[in-house]
Amino acid sequence: MSSAANSFLDAERLDRADVLRGFRGRFYGVDDDVIYLDGNSLGRLPVESLDRLDDVVRQGWGHGLVRSWEGWIEWPAAVGDLLGSTLLGAAAGQVGISDSTSVNVYKLACAALDLHPSRRTLVTDTGNFPSDRYIFEGLASARGLRLVELDADPVHGVSLAEVERVIDSDTALVSLSHVDYRSGALADLEGITAATHQAGAPVLWDLCHSVGAVPIGLDAAGVDFAAGCTYKYLNAGPGAPAFAYVRRDLQAQTRQPIWGWFGQQAQFDMGPRYHPVEGIERFLVGTPQVLGIALVEQGVRLLGEARIERLRAKGIALTSYLIELADEWLVPLGFEVATPREPARRGSHVSLKHADADRISVALIEQARVIPDFRRPDLVRLGCSPLTTSFVDVHEAMRRIRDLVSSERHREIDLGARRVT
Amino acid sequence: MSSAANSFLDAERLDRADVLRGFRGRFYGVDDDVIYLDGNSLGRLPVESLDRLDDVVRQGWGHGLVRSWEGWIEWPAAVGDLLGSTLLGAAAGQVGISDSTSVNVYKLACAALDLHPSRRTLVTDTGNFPSDRYIFEGLASARGLRLVELDADPVHGVSLAEVERVIDSDTALVSLSHVDYRSGALADLEGITAATHQAGAPVLWDLCHSVGAVPIGLDAAGVDFAAGCTYKYLNAGPGAPAFAYVRRDLQAQTRQPIWGWFGQQAQFDMGPRYHPVEGIERFLVGTPQVLGIALVEQGVRLLGEARIERLRAKGIALTSYLIELADEWLVPLGFEVATPREPARRGSHVSLKHADADRISVALIEQARVIPDFRRPDLVRLGCSPLTTSFVDVHEAMRRIRDLVSSERHREIDLGARRVT
Repeated sequence: MSSAANSFLDAERLDRADVLRGFRGRFYGVDDDVIYLDGNSLGRLPVESLDRLDDVVRQGWGHGLVRSWEGWIEWPAAVGDLLGSTLLGAAAGQVGISDSTSVNVYKLACAALDLHPSRRTLVTDTGNFPSDRYIFEGLASARGLRLVELDADPVHGVSLAEVERVIDSDTALVSLSHVDYRSGALADLEGITAATHQAGAPVLWDLCHSVGAVPIGLDAAGVDFAAGCTYKYLNAGPGAPAFAYVRRDLQAQTRQPIWGWFGQQAQFDMGPRYHPVEGIERFLVGTPQVLGIALVEQGVRLLGEARIERLRAKGIALTSYLIELADEWLVPLGFEVATPREPARRGSHVSLKHADADRISVALIEQARVIPDFRRPDLVRLGCSPLTTSFVDVHEAMRRIRDLVSSERHREIDLGARRVT
Repeated sequence: MSSAANSFLDAERLDRADVLRGFRGRFYGVDDDVIYLDGNSLGRLPVESLDRLDDVVRQGWGHGLVRSWEGWIEWPAAVGDLLGSTLLGAAAGQVGISDSTSVNVYKLACAALDLHPSRRTLVTDTGNFPSDRYIFEGLASARGLRLVELDADPVHGVSLAEVERVIDSDTALVSLSHVDYRSGALADLEGITAATHQAGAPVLWDLCHSVGAVPIGLDAAGVDFAAGCTYKYLNAGPGAPAFAYVRRDLQAQTRQPIWGWFGQQAQFDMGPRYHPVEGIERFLVGTPQVLGIALVEQGVRLLGEARIERLRAKGIALTSYLIELADEWLVPLGFEVATPREPARRGSHVSLKHADADRISVALIEQARVIPDFRRPDLVRLGCSPLTTSFVDVHEAMRRIRDLVSSERHREIDLGARRVT
């Protein structure tokens, strides 16, 4: 792309050559006058999901009523299988759709910690997503464990070497995010998993910011536990249910702490004692979120049709283009690229560091019709969702950021009057 | 009603006199050729919820995208307040909408058990809903507690006297269902709560089968903790999020075990340590189920418009009528009424005991277009949802049960080929 990168024609050419360009039109609201670079927080609404939702609501709930449970009851595991084979590199019987990511992280961490009760250290990093860190803090407090939080490089994230330095025979669990929610750094899932196993401990990966954007091979890497959300790249909607992966050979020996009836053998016998089912369903708890699971299925089908290799290639192309424009236009204005420059070391979003990141983020939304995400204290986070973000989107957004910041209009924003999330 | 009860004209007269009759037409599918007596398992779809869902999906998610979180983030507590004031007798700031009932029961039970760690007994009953019992079994196992399961009368449920006999200075928690999911027996919430407090312990009430059908006064009774679901009488749809109540003066001294980011102060600061918010939101965990909460709000608004006193009066009238017909028509055919006959001692469903209950339930659905619920081993459970069940529904369903069983057609059902849930 080189020096022609700052040409609008160049962005149009990249869009024309994009094999995934046809998918954009299958999302609702893409013609709105707004450039959306936060699909990694809340993915867009697939048009086909409207019909699916309508069918589940009117036919399934409205007409089928309680009889529809005959089919619905299979969905947590069936859609889990679909997600596993499409995006997680997971054979059938290892993924369930349920609860929120946070609840799943809790359940899986408890199950993992119970594997080696004599081991007393839980390893994570200070850059891990807050909900994960708080959950581990709570578990460490409740169980009297030592919580080791690696203080990794804010741009490059946790390295294999850093993990290797702290794990030993006291390590009960290593849990990290596959893609860092701030910098976008992609962790060495295979290497860290292998090293942790070498130390005799299981891993729990948070896949929220990688699923649907980066190929994942849970089975191949021998991952023990994983969880993630479905409302980012999977486009399943706000608060859609999350997923949990437990490697098949671990299932019989692990239990989760919340002994709900959807994990019970012959559930409708309603027997006196809890006997968890053999499979992944033992990690289910309460009544499944039927509408949400249907939307997860729709999202996964769409990504399956696009194919993860092509999504990954486009994600790299979009973020590379964005970084190139940032270097040319924004670094001179005081921005720093706070995401790994090597494509293989990042997911599908890029963070730009700037002392006025908060004001810039608000001004972009209110004055420039660009929706980024602000991450405290100083990051403007820009998500490139391969199915819905175009190269023209990236070009135009970067131009608007350049024009905004060079004109210093963002300095007029009064943050006191706003809640910046 | 007396001897005229078996007349269809009588049922029509009761419907004409029903002040809530206008609500039935505001539900989807009520004109389908089926008599639905399982609204206490999955409530019907309110027509207005279709528009609400469409608005949340298209406008909120599709166009608003991540910006809509500005409003959505308030929903768990705001809709909790609405539910609290409308149906729970709870002042603002004590109810949150989140997770499933089972996850909420787990969180609240942990919080309750932490109040008096030296007390080592958890009291429930064998007739409590299985998911609750399994969760308590898991907690008892994890914490080394003694689990006392009262073996209450299967028709009349747990009495105050039975609870009083087992509670003492070792009691850490008493948890029961307000309305028994099988018999429909209504527990003495006020008396049991007061007696448990007398013994120095907190209570946790499961309100799944009472909320929306029976007036509940949590604040007045001084209840400590309560949870329940929204997909039965609240008509919020399959797998809709549940609610959790924690009495205001207990909130500061209680913590739940799952330290998720939606319970965190200044959540978007994403700070290093977990500091739970002051209010009920400390019992939230992960990202709220936006679509589901919108449907909860719609359901609660509808019930608020109907008013709980009128819903209760109609529920009593419907179940009384049903019992009267059962006595006349079904008891001679081998049925027993397995629900308290005194209206003040039951919720809004009636169970009929019969040795062939399983075959009868299947035959009703497949041959008679009546949808009851089967509860092992021998109950046909018939729910009277005050907003959607008519007296003609009850009359016609009872007539079809009579005709089916008197003809013995249900005996031809081959259960081996079916999963009876």
